[in-house]
Amino acid sequence: MSKIRKSVFELEEYIPGEQPNDDAIKLNTNENPYLPSPEVLDILREIDISDLSLYPDPNCLELRKVIADLHQCSIDQIFVGNGSDEILALAIRAYVERDSKVGYLAPSYSLYSVLTEIEDIEHEVVFLDDGFNFKIPENLDSSLFLLANPNAPTGIFMDVESINCFADNYKGVLLIDEAYVDFAEDNCLDLAFKHSNVIITRSLSKSYSLAGIRCGYCVGSADLINALYKIKDSYNVNYITQELARVALLDQATMRANVEAIKETRNLVFEKLTDLGYEVYESQTNFLWFKPLGIKAAKLFELLKERNIYIRYFSASSRTDDYLRVTIGTASEMFTFLDALDEIINSES
Amino acid sequence: MSKIRKSVFELEEYIPGEQPNDDAIKLNTNENPYLPSPEVLDILREIDISDLSLYPDPNCLELRKVIADLHQCSIDQIFVGNGSDEILALAIRAYVERDSKVGYLAPSYSLYSVLTEIEDIEHEVVFLDDGFNFKIPENLDSSLFLLANPNAPTGIFMDVESINCFADNYKGVLLIDEAYVDFAEDNCLDLAFKHSNVIITRSLSKSYSLAGIRCGYCVGSADLINALYKIKDSYNVNYITQELARVALLDQATMRANVEAIKETRNLVFEKLTDLGYEVYESQTNFLWFKPLGIKAAKLFELLKERNIYIRYFSASSRTDDYLRVTIGTASEMFTFLDALDEIINSES
Repeated sequence: MSKIRKSVFELEEYIPGEQPNDDAIKLNTNENPYLPSPEVLDILREIDISDLSLYPDPNCLELRKVIADLHQCSIDQIFVGNGSDEILALAIRAYVERDSKVGYLAPSYSLYSVLTEIEDIEHEVVFLDDGFNFKIPENLDSSLFLLANPNAPTGIFMDVESINCFADNYKGVLLIDEAYVDFAEDNCLDLAFKHSNVIITRSLSKSYSLAGIRCGYCVGSADLINALYKIKDSYNVNYITQELARVALLDQATMRANVEAIKETRNLVFEKLTDLGYEVYESQTNFLWFKPLGIKAAKLFELLKERNIYIRYFSASSRTDDYLRVTIGTASEMFTFLDALDEIINSES
Repeated sequence: MSKIRKSVFELEEYIPGEQPNDDAIKLNTNENPYLPSPEVLDILREIDISDLSLYPDPNCLELRKVIADLHQCSIDQIFVGNGSDEILALAIRAYVERDSKVGYLAPSYSLYSVLTEIEDIEHEVVFLDDGFNFKIPENLDSSLFLLANPNAPTGIFMDVESINCFADNYKGVLLIDEAYVDFAEDNCLDLAFKHSNVIITRSLSKSYSLAGIRCGYCVGSADLINALYKIKDSYNVNYITQELARVALLDQATMRANVEAIKETRNLVFEKLTDLGYEVYESQTNFLWFKPLGIKAAKLFELLKERNIYIRYFSASSRTDDYLRVTIGTASEMFTFLDALDEIINSES
């Protein structure tokens, strides 16, 4: 008999985007092409090696003070995780009874369904319409709804008032995953203060250029936050990450400048793709979601890869397999990407 | 109605040892008083900040190669976690059906019962005898047994042959938590290669002086390892930790030298405590477990704390509340500790 839990044995795990070789143009995992705050380098160089032999603060107090200050709330309303992925996994384990359900949109961040599967909990899926939008669902009976806003892989932002209305009507915990929100024109942070059933997650991976250190946090009522603290691993965020994240968050100016540069490039790429006749979605993230014209998405993906340009193709669902997602890199990387598109189009026609 | 899962709401969480102020003599969380490998400092200073904007290798391949080389096995037999605590939590979720049980000794690492509680799974507790030893239990019906060897908080090492016999008779997965094994005279690593149901966990927190970076790993059959990979967070070990852990493991000499120094100090403190008439247990770890004479454990703990010396007192159980655990620090710290004991004894008598 297998020693593995049945649901784990049968699980199809989440597959992160490829990590290609160093020479590749990597536009496949929504990383930031710009450097993090220079303060990060300074504090990294100043780390005292003797501090590494001690356990880190299990409660991330200094880091939470900075976050609480940034969002004008109390530290009891802040949880820090080993990436916001850890927070998503903990939320399912903290808020959902095993005979209940987890809700999410489809398509959305594909990790949501995998996390639900790992916990062997029933799914309550809300399908997006043909334009990748959705109406506020009514009569949901899940205990937790994982809502990416802006959504991934589409980049579409749902207006705050609609989500406010969602929170009003929903009986479970509404977790709004704002991993990309620094690239958007608005955000739902206030809903976490207004509704006792709303949690907002944020990430340092994208806008702060710090995917490598693993740091995400969430904001919500003290009750919801406390439940996450009860079940997390004792020392979930290491010492160096706590130090680096703290100074990165204090330097909002660098983050904002990088975000503005990416948005500018995004708008330029949006226009170019639109000019090619591609169906491109208005993005409030650091990536674009588009349907190519005159060439299958799968084929374009492969031809770009042959040219050492990696973007993302989601083949698993018929709702996504005609589309591609490209992360916004530097202007130079995006010109290379656009030139490659031109070349492919010309050689195919 | 509460939004929190009932079992989480009712949970009494694990409380890590106190993190006192900087001036304190900290002998309460089994940290290593010596510096990690100088290679750790070198590579820390060389980290390229532009690498921090990329996601880390989700599979820790370079680090696993080093570990596989160290233990003469294949990388498929190695899993790396965000501290070995993460591995313990994942093991319960990977190997235990919800209507099954998790087994462990009592007293042992108190996290085991909390992790079982978090998953809302039944406990199968094997109680130690008056000398904190145990006979190989028969007819256990748990799916996973968490066995710390050397055990904590007692420091006692159970011989390999007995554990081999345990593995032979046990139908579930036997996880041998070797967090302290580098301080012992033997280890059970070979059992992970000999038995398909044995997993060995190791930690860089103690012997490698790297509690701050959060890195643990485990060794076991490819099937057991693969199940952990299926359910872990996508990027569970950050980039810097992967880099630092790799060079630390390559430098076995520094680790060994630090361990020898601690063992020497441990033997000295063992003798001094024994001379005081205290009941002291033979330790194969970096701490000592003892029952004081002529003063209650709780009182001695408090009087040491008043002198800014922090050791560990486990008040929760009648099996442990007459005992104290002291981590072996530097010789100088231990002399201060022993002097404080003398002073307390003299002032109390």
